[in-house]
Amino acid sequence: MTGFTLDPTLAKDTIEIKKLDLCYVGLMNDTRYPWLILVPMQNGLVELTDLTRGDAIKLIDEISHISQILQTQLKPHKLNTAALGNQVRQLHIHIIARQTTDAAWPGPVWGVGDAVPYGEEELEKMVRKLGELF
Amino acid sequence: MTGFTLDPTLAKDTIEIKKLDLCYVGLMNDTRYPWLILVPMQNGLVELTDLTRGDAIKLIDEISHISQILQTQLKPHKLNTAALGNQVRQLHIHIIARQTTDAAWPGPVWGVGDAVPYGEEELEKMVRKLGELF
Repeated sequence: MTGFTLDPTLAKDTIEIKKLDLCYVGLMNDTRYPWLILVPMQNGLVELTDLTRGDAIKLIDEISHISQILQTQLKPHKLNTAALGNQVRQLHIHIIARQTTDAAWPGPVWGVGDAVPYGEEELEKMVRKLGELF
Repeated sequence: MTGFTLDPTLAKDTIEIKKLDLCYVGLMNDTRYPWLILVPMQNGLVELTDLTRGDAIKLIDEISHISQILQTQLKPHKLNTAALGNQVRQLHIHIIARQTTDAAWPGPVWGVGDAVPYGEEELEKMVRKLGELF
């Protein structure tokens, strides 16, 4: 993992929760949705196919791990899981816990309105709680 | 795989290309993007976490397989891979080959304008070609 550099946009938009075996896990600073970003900690990855098969399996394991915790804790109506990368090319996976009452439902969250950042205390609490759960 | 029922909306919107070991692979009838849908052929799946670990690994293998072929054939600027399911709950994975010149770039494709269906001959040719490649 030495020398891995998180894309500057991802570094600006997320708060680190934890480093798993493969992925950096960050929380998007947007109270409208519980929204996590997983970034495999290897420089130069763009597509899922840039991962070795072993790391692709690690990725699906880590996605499942995070997803199960979000399901248990938040009971979302649906999880949205996506690797898009049209704006930020560094391979990253969105996992968003969606509710039918949220700001973008039933559409996808990307490009809808502006992020509503957490207050300082709320953010600290959220990061600590998720860190313990993940 | 006996008794698997494809969601009616997915059945209406896609044309079957092939059945892989785990997934039905369909082509979205929309010429604006090369857009494939993978559906694990098990009734009752909603979230990725509803798959056994073995099937989750099969899924990532099949996503990689399809992605590599799209990359080789179409040289997309980016692949978009997503399991959303806000409108259709049956677990399905979108794989879309994006170009910087396409109708929705750099945004996601969902909810943008109306599908532009293939002509009959064009569709037949596309389905046959992809069937041979996959």
